[in-house]
Amino acid sequence: MSEPIHGGDVWRWGAARPLDFSASLNPMGMAPEVRQAAHRGVELSVHYPDPLCAGLSRALSAQTGLPEDWMVWGNGAAALLEAAVGTLRPRRALLFSPCFGEYERVLTQFHCEIHHHPLRSEDSFDLTGAALSAIVPGLDLVLLCTPNNPTGRCIDPALLSAALERCEQVGAAALVDESFLELSDPERRTNLLPRLRPGCKLLLLRSLTKSHCIPGLRLGCALCADEAWMSAIRGWGQPWSVSVPAQLAGEAAMGRPDWPEAALRLIRPERVRMTKALRELGCTVWESDTNFLLFRAPGDRTLRERLLGRGILIRSCADFRGLGLEYYRAAIRTGEENTTLLAAVREERGTWHDPL
Amino acid sequence: MSEPIHGGDVWRWGAARPLDFSASLNPMGMAPEVRQAAHRGVELSVHYPDPLCAGLSRALSAQTGLPEDWMVWGNGAAALLEAAVGTLRPRRALLFSPCFGEYERVLTQFHCEIHHHPLRSEDSFDLTGAALSAIVPGLDLVLLCTPNNPTGRCIDPALLSAALERCEQVGAAALVDESFLELSDPERRTNLLPRLRPGCKLLLLRSLTKSHCIPGLRLGCALCADEAWMSAIRGWGQPWSVSVPAQLAGEAAMGRPDWPEAALRLIRPERVRMTKALRELGCTVWESDTNFLLFRAPGDRTLRERLLGRGILIRSCADFRGLGLEYYRAAIRTGEENTTLLAAVREERGTWHDPL
Repeated sequence: MSEPIHGGDVWRWGAARPLDFSASLNPMGMAPEVRQAAHRGVELSVHYPDPLCAGLSRALSAQTGLPEDWMVWGNGAAALLEAAVGTLRPRRALLFSPCFGEYERVLTQFHCEIHHHPLRSEDSFDLTGAALSAIVPGLDLVLLCTPNNPTGRCIDPALLSAALERCEQVGAAALVDESFLELSDPERRTNLLPRLRPGCKLLLLRSLTKSHCIPGLRLGCALCADEAWMSAIRGWGQPWSVSVPAQLAGEAAMGRPDWPEAALRLIRPERVRMTKALRELGCTVWESDTNFLLFRAPGDRTLRERLLGRGILIRSCADFRGLGLEYYRAAIRTGEENTTLLAAVREERGTWHDPL
Repeated sequence: MSEPIHGGDVWRWGAARPLDFSASLNPMGMAPEVRQAAHRGVELSVHYPDPLCAGLSRALSAQTGLPEDWMVWGNGAAALLEAAVGTLRPRRALLFSPCFGEYERVLTQFHCEIHHHPLRSEDSFDLTGAALSAIVPGLDLVLLCTPNNPTGRCIDPALLSAALERCEQVGAAALVDESFLELSDPERRTNLLPRLRPGCKLLLLRSLTKSHCIPGLRLGCALCADEAWMSAIRGWGQPWSVSVPAQLAGEAAMGRPDWPEAALRLIRPERVRMTKALRELGCTVWESDTNFLLFRAPGDRTLRERLLGRGILIRSCADFRGLGLEYYRAAIRTGEENTTLLAAVREERGTWHDPL
């Protein structure tokens, strides 16, 4: 059996589940309406799911003003990434690394040649003007992620705009993963919805998993105005990919846009506090725009294992291209939980650094 | 938006859901333990699902005695069909028609050339010796379904065995869809588990959806002892394809093997009664071995629509290769519900036949 390396794998410990900072979710948990809707979904699961996810599209259309046929729903954003790549069948794609590992896995699955443009630590792993020059003719697909996983950095609006224009110029489709957008600082976000227009191969990936803390239900959305691509994605895969509990929970989640907003009010000061505290403990911490942060514990390759011994799970970033064994990602959780993490790191830090 | 044509699409009518004979499910509904487990799964859905589905494999291994690494779980059997084909990448595949439409859709999605061997109405749409001769060198994959959807017929054990041997001889992988096996007459089933052995490219598809009436939760299983194929299937697609409610419900379902058994005691006499009654009304009805039946209403191309006007949904089989506009499939439900269907057909039959 292969060992999964993604965050959020809390099951192998049975009832003694660790305090999980490895998955980056709304620290407020599930809204009551969302939980109730999911339970109602269980009762209705004696029926097959609606293949069209009509209720979800109706709700998102009402919220965004976009036509329903610009939306496709899937069993998590990861499933839609696969459908988008499986239907586009790019021969060459561009990734900006470090980035979410599923991009590379899915592209490889479909035999796509991958160009890696490394983001630099000294640039805070930000996209820069130099990155734009990597968008060249011959590319079929460019993947962007804002805020980026695992760095937590939003792409600068002007650069994002320039990158998308460059994609159009060279004839590459653009896939922008916005999975963590709703848990990011509003002034750092770019609203790409106005850029969607018929015939434009710009596809936005959204997830309700993070913003509404329902990762166990699996629900994601692809937004794109290119009719041919969307029609192919809709025809890709089985008709019943989104379960009944996920559909009903998603509809309820769209009725609670205040839920991720309230989470933001919790996340921002806590992120500032955690960034400061981890730096004081000798870590390098990259400024994050969202609900998780990337840090480096100098010389420490076993911090994850030692914290796990204390019942706390963080994400090792050793498998991210361009990072390494001393890099870790931690979610911003509630104040009390973050204090627990910081105290544990403080007790472990002796082995790797003494700031005094 | 494309119109889905599969059974079970009861959502477009809102709260006025029709009485659904188009999906073929355990007529007893969900077992209480399964329902409770799914609700517990909702509460635990603040976590990502276990990518390994360890609890499910443990339970199935205990039940079957097979090693856990011969099992892969998916978001419904349909998702595993896709993974099986996506990893095998057959150039040429053989289908026995009529059969479940997803086979053709998935094979086409992966650009596979499809050979159709037609099953004949006068053979009760059974696999015969002649069908075996269609298994020829040059085929990479042969798909079999027992009991077959939409005919309800189990493949004769000796013929099934011969077909699988022939697949091995010509070097074709064999995929046997057993989605409805647990709701089929025990004396008509073939237990293929003993045929699984390392290196043998025989893959069995199972579904808990039908036998435990949880189609809205999405859960299927692939069983195969070929290490290379299984490892590829495990690596195909996202790590979190099976939701938490589906995993917990599935574990609970395996603790209730008596649930589909009890359903069988209900299904068998009801199927005999429905077969007889529909024949008396002038329909051609094929002898079914399972929880649904295929029938033909001579000259009637709109029976589905007229029954829908009465709040009853059956499956039109017009889109099945080898069938046509007068063919329909109906699930066996509870006695009272079946009586409702028969009464409605009786009232509509005047338009197509007067047996007197």
